[in-house]
Amino acid sequence: MSSLTLRELLVERWVTSLRHELLLDRLAVPIVLAPLAGGPSTPELTAAVSNAGGFGFLAAGYLGASALAERLERTRTLTGAPIGVNLFIPGTSAPPQAVDAYAARLADDARQAGVELGAARFDDDDWAAKLELLMATPVAVVSFVFGCPEPEVIDRFRDAGSEVWVTVTRPDEARHAVDAGADALVVQGAEAGGHRASFRDDPAADVIGGIGLLSLLQLVRAQADIPLVATGGIATGAAIAAVLAAGAAAAQLGTAFLRCPEAGTAAVYRQALADNAPTAMTRAFTGRLARGIRNRFLDRYSAAAPAAYPELHHLTAPLRQAGRAAGDPGLVNLWAGQTYELGHQLPAGQLVRTLAEEARAALQHAGDRLSPPAGGLGEEVGSAGPAPRSPS
Amino acid sequence: MSSLTLRELLVERWVTSLRHELLLDRLAVPIVLAPLAGGPSTPELTAAVSNAGGFGFLAAGYLGASALAERLERTRTLTGAPIGVNLFIPGTSAPPQAVDAYAARLADDARQAGVELGAARFDDDDWAAKLELLMATPVAVVSFVFGCPEPEVIDRFRDAGSEVWVTVTRPDEARHAVDAGADALVVQGAEAGGHRASFRDDPAADVIGGIGLLSLLQLVRAQADIPLVATGGIATGAAIAAVLAAGAAAAQLGTAFLRCPEAGTAAVYRQALADNAPTAMTRAFTGRLARGIRNRFLDRYSAAAPAAYPELHHLTAPLRQAGRAAGDPGLVNLWAGQTYELGHQLPAGQLVRTLAEEARAALQHAGDRLSPPAGGLGEEVGSAGPAPRSPS
Repeated sequence: MSSLTLRELLVERWVTSLRHELLLDRLAVPIVLAPLAGGPSTPELTAAVSNAGGFGFLAAGYLGASALAERLERTRTLTGAPIGVNLFIPGTSAPPQAVDAYAARLADDARQAGVELGAARFDDDDWAAKLELLMATPVAVVSFVFGCPEPEVIDRFRDAGSEVWVTVTRPDEARHAVDAGADALVVQGAEAGGHRASFRDDPAADVIGGIGLLSLLQLVRAQADIPLVATGGIATGAAIAAVLAAGAAAAQLGTAFLRCPEAGTAAVYRQALADNAPTAMTRAFTGRLARGIRNRFLDRYSAAAPAAYPELHHLTAPLRQAGRAAGDPGLVNLWAGQTYELGHQLPAGQLVRTLAEEARAALQHAGDRLSPPAGGLGEEVGSAGPAPRSPS
Repeated sequence: MSSLTLRELLVERWVTSLRHELLLDRLAVPIVLAPLAGGPSTPELTAAVSNAGGFGFLAAGYLGASALAERLERTRTLTGAPIGVNLFIPGTSAPPQAVDAYAARLADDARQAGVELGAARFDDDDWAAKLELLMATPVAVVSFVFGCPEPEVIDRFRDAGSEVWVTVTRPDEARHAVDAGADALVVQGAEAGGHRASFRDDPAADVIGGIGLLSLLQLVRAQADIPLVATGGIATGAAIAAVLAAGAAAAQLGTAFLRCPEAGTAAVYRQALADNAPTAMTRAFTGRLARGIRNRFLDRYSAAAPAAYPELHHLTAPLRQAGRAAGDPGLVNLWAGQTYELGHQLPAGQLVRTLAEEARAALQHAGDRLSPPAGGLGEEVGSAGPAPRSPS
């Protein structure tokens, strides 16, 4: 520092300030569409949210690079607004014995559904090819789940013109992502539907349980001085207002968009979302911890399912497909956050606008509630006697 | 309705409006001290929070009526401001076999600590005598955990001049409490330290897990049109602002006050609160699900502990007492919410004032973030091209 001239120092500050003018600062509406990999994600949904002034993610998970390229191209025909792509960080393969034992348990269900179980193979979700695609045709933001990319990968994305957001579920993950150079953190509370974004899916940590969104926002803010995007159970404008008040730059909603006409949500899944059965965490469908609506498959196999992703994802795919085809919700992974029953069947753009209006009203109301009282806040009021109906 | 004259209708409306001028509308600071039964609750802490313009609860749980009367009397010498008392709703006794089997498992630990295990008896926490005491010398608010009082009990409290708040952890509990006539609901998220307030402690529901505070506020608000007090993992002014934005009338904090000099928190407990080990849910200490900092006892016995409250509470009391006396945190129930590591060692009144200031600043900041942009919010922005550094 001492070797810098004043001019060099000012230039450095200016460059730093440029770098921090992030997409989140430019959004008309602080609402982000969660990626929703595995069916619900469509170019139409992503474009609708970005066109309404929010920010739409397109899911890259489960897609090969060429399928992703097609979806990206289609999305670009539907919107000129910035969009994002979400990638799964590859894990490591699971012990085959655990997977085989689990497959044996599913045999009866497969027979009854008239399908053969899938081949329980490991893969890296076409990681390298999708990186190259996104370097060649960059999007505004690339976000990650299931880990943090290496600092070199983050640098390459930034050089290509993309911001890098890393999804975190614990304070130590947040520190890691900040140290690696992330531009923003997606802070995922335990309320969230679908996969936990945890860097490592460790069954030994199940006893701790997940950290609730509002607690996690406070814990992460104490560790990380970069923008936060809050996600997990946000279904109303009041909850969006809440996470903004808690210090988030935006709210990311997934489940709330599942019933939009633009979403690729299967019919049997839409029906389940219109009901109000409780949700639970499970590894039964994919081998990675995820929150879904309790159903027959979840209740029957959660206790036995090992941490083996994506092996179990491939193993159970034909069963889930059979459930969707036959209209049997008991076989389908009905990913949903804890507030799914508050969802609406609205076009995505209209939903974004309604939620933003509700959020503004909620903040206004809360501000009125907390305005300094006539007597001056912070003064001792011990001498004030109780009102007639409220003896002390 | 049709048989009422206009005059009668107006009188009815006026009476209703009187009834709804609740204590929560009159608080200078929307911060409530949680009850903190079992040691940390003191008259000094309760009075300090109420004297600072917040609202202090005094715990009645685990106390006989005469001990509660003494504490109430002492609190009244310390403050003229309104205070509340929290009561445990009595449950039902547990099967003796389950309790005996658990006691057998603890025998080694008891020997090592040089104590005899307590008598695993059922009791109703001196329920009837404490009701009589609180009818005779009413407080501003009586709140409840572990269930909802009968409508007749609620009516009696209201006739005595007390408001009735019922603590809920699920939407169906909220409906029940509203139907029974509660004046307000304390909405307890899964992040909360200490006992889950659930009406029934059902191990079969453990697979669902608790509902996070922000999700629960949204779900309860959809069911209940009475004031809500949010609790669970609230440690900062930003989180207080968040729950107000989510529609709560106030935030109830417990863990945040445990390190105040006025609290009766044991030394070994204070030390654990200054660290950052994870928390977990357990029935190991009391036979009722509660969140505490993970330690030796919690990790060793959580899987085996049956739902048997207050039997296990009495059974383990000598062990926990020995742990406190010997400075061994491994034997002590270290109740704490998920954000306990953000707590401060401040006098309670100062903490209330600091949190209120932080909350006001957080709401102001969020309001700025969500003010309508120059271009007019809600308009299609699809034609707006991406900024140079953020290709779409």
